[in-house]
Amino acid sequence: MKILKRLRKIGFSKLTSLNDALTNIDSLIKPISFEEVKTSNSQNRILATNIKSELDIPPFDRAAMDGYAVKAEDTFGASPSNPKIIKKIGTIEIGEQTNLVLKSGEAIRISTGAVIPEGSDAVTKIEDTEIMDEEVSLYSSLVPGKNVSKKGEDIPRGTEILNSGITIKASHIALLSSLGIKQIKVKKQPKISVFAVGDELVDVGNPLPTNKIYNSNSPMISSLVKTYGGCVIRESSLKDDKEEIKNNLINSIKDSQIIIFTGGTSVGTKDFLPEILHENGQVITHGIAIRPGSPLLIGLMEQTIIFCLPGTPVAAYICFLLIVGITIRKILGSINIDPRAKILAQISKDVPVSSLGFIHLLRVKIERQESSFIAIPVRLKGSGIISSLTQSDGIVEIPANKEGLKKGENVIVKLYP
Amino acid sequence: MKILKRLRKIGFSKLTSLNDALTNIDSLIKPISFEEVKTSNSQNRILATNIKSELDIPPFDRAAMDGYAVKAEDTFGASPSNPKIIKKIGTIEIGEQTNLVLKSGEAIRISTGAVIPEGSDAVTKIEDTEIMDEEVSLYSSLVPGKNVSKKGEDIPRGTEILNSGITIKASHIALLSSLGIKQIKVKKQPKISVFAVGDELVDVGNPLPTNKIYNSNSPMISSLVKTYGGCVIRESSLKDDKEEIKNNLINSIKDSQIIIFTGGTSVGTKDFLPEILHENGQVITHGIAIRPGSPLLIGLMEQTIIFCLPGTPVAAYICFLLIVGITIRKILGSINIDPRAKILAQISKDVPVSSLGFIHLLRVKIERQESSFIAIPVRLKGSGIISSLTQSDGIVEIPANKEGLKKGENVIVKLYP
Repeated sequence: MKILKRLRKIGFSKLTSLNDALTNIDSLIKPISFEEVKTSNSQNRILATNIKSELDIPPFDRAAMDGYAVKAEDTFGASPSNPKIIKKIGTIEIGEQTNLVLKSGEAIRISTGAVIPEGSDAVTKIEDTEIMDEEVSLYSSLVPGKNVSKKGEDIPRGTEILNSGITIKASHIALLSSLGIKQIKVKKQPKISVFAVGDELVDVGNPLPTNKIYNSNSPMISSLVKTYGGCVIRESSLKDDKEEIKNNLINSIKDSQIIIFTGGTSVGTKDFLPEILHENGQVITHGIAIRPGSPLLIGLMEQTIIFCLPGTPVAAYICFLLIVGITIRKILGSINIDPRAKILAQISKDVPVSSLGFIHLLRVKIERQESSFIAIPVRLKGSGIISSLTQSDGIVEIPANKEGLKKGENVIVKLYP
Repeated sequence: MKILKRLRKIGFSKLTSLNDALTNIDSLIKPISFEEVKTSNSQNRILATNIKSELDIPPFDRAAMDGYAVKAEDTFGASPSNPKIIKKIGTIEIGEQTNLVLKSGEAIRISTGAVIPEGSDAVTKIEDTEIMDEEVSLYSSLVPGKNVSKKGEDIPRGTEILNSGITIKASHIALLSSLGIKQIKVKKQPKISVFAVGDELVDVGNPLPTNKIYNSNSPMISSLVKTYGGCVIRESSLKDDKEEIKNNLINSIKDSQIIIFTGGTSVGTKDFLPEILHENGQVITHGIAIRPGSPLLIGLMEQTIIFCLPGTPVAAYICFLLIVGITIRKILGSINIDPRAKILAQISKDVPVSSLGFIHLLRVKIERQESSFIAIPVRLKGSGIISSLTQSDGIVEIPANKEGLKKGENVIVKLYP
């Protein structure tokens, strides 16, 4: 009990559940405003408005096949052994305007995508015809509407076609372009400052003195920020120096929606971040019931959300995916707050967990079997071991009330982004 | 038979299997050279060399926990009811060099990540101790090595840690940074020209005359090129004009590894691309046994691979995923030539296919059920219908020799990139 008391004085006293931590953050989130970009440059941005079609798609009745525009009734009964013969009266190319009007017994050569002429209600495929002089032999019988794409068949004018909050991909760019939409409103990218804290850190590019390590956390976190749609406006390493940390924090809250620290957040003798946040802002949550990642500290200063992630790279990475990334996506108003692909797999072996009450985040490698996926735990310990990330494909979350996994059990694997 | 003969004259005479088409392309592929970039800016690039570690990671024996460095034998038998008492002789902070040497009966306060002092072989967690003046009570018994990360434990010096051909993600940036690697060699991005061909096309931003449609293909394909790691150096729409198409083709082969056309490749009266390629280069494959997408034309001019995709957007999109994207990834030397995530699902209903001999590409929406995923076919016809892409999540490939799918059957869904 004395031990616990001592711990309470210097660090987090009780752990918050992951869900409660996310709920605590929700009340801090200020949605971000929008900016206009060219549709063709909007890839991976988050749409900021609903989009209605101002056009019918297709904008006119058009041929879905190369062939002949006909009246369907003229084809009734036609077959390879009993062709119907009609007369070709002209041609309509794609993109061409036409005054041709089709009458019974007539055919008009038509290209895929060309406008269906007045009087026609079907298109017979070129493969099902033969032409001799101006006489067309039809070898198949068509129902009305066959091989015709009707005006508005895909999207009638006025349809809401895309919702605010989607992540724009190639197919959306195609859809928006097909509707003639040149510019769209997308969410601005949240501005984010990233700091790696620790006297032991040396920035890459410098010689490495004994007992020091290279700073891998701030480049890793910056990369993740970009993946999740944020904009890194500042990235550096800092010493375990209260004034240095505080000054950088105060300087960054002016222009950052989020500030991310790694290190300096546990119960070590030099972990100043909890203290700084208590004195200058607000500690929202300190200590989360996840493993790895429990020392996470969430704070607020003015409007800026502060995340202090553990200094061990794997724990920092996992905290980012579970909490920071989701916060970025919520600020962006994304429908899909967790962009990781999820797959079903069977776990390859028993996985005991050391302590109930924590969500355990298990790194796994995926192997495809004949008709299933196998999730192979990569390494169960060592939250500093970066290669356990590069050698695995994703994470299995073992719920806090579950005493581990049994070999063969179904699990959801969330793939790394 | 006459019909078939006629078709042979004007278009593709027989369909090539998807596998054969990909094999045909393999012989055309020239691997691309590399360039140096900063590790921190290498996200989503393809690594161009194997990487060996020039360091041990960790670079020294270090504490994995905050606590006291001790001799494990001094802790033997310690428990909450029977604490062992030893003497604190100093402190080692993270990043600090030390001359302290630990002797029996002594403890040194140590931070996570700090160097283990000479003479110590274990770290007792701060939570399992209590300090009074300079006397430390130990409440738990440790085995040698406990809470110590040994030098080289994660990565011994000389280990090959990353392979040429991987796509660089946050975890790789972290790993490379932890090894002090500031610059890396990545593959250059293949230069790609994109043209949408068709008299019916109007570029977005202009008014839409009757019987015309907006060009959605070239922005869509350009977006996909970026997703797959290519660089779009030229994008425009072209009229169905043999000279205009030919001039753009000849102009683009000088600086493009790949040229992608959409439209103008079928057997329509104005489909000039097969002709142009016959006359000025080489037709490698024309017509592929996939649906949608069968009119695909693959050609070569000098060193440049030419893809002529169908003009209907969904067919163009699918041809890109199945063939063009994979070609880009092969040029890049990517290990993962098909970057789409794959998930297992059960199909929600019977899906008959109209014709054996074709791989059918079925667009599906994914719904998560309790412990499985359901794949719901979105729309079985209409390869021009872009909203069938925006409303679905991925594609199920029905093999050419399979008469459709039965409700409940297991399928692999390849998610859209």
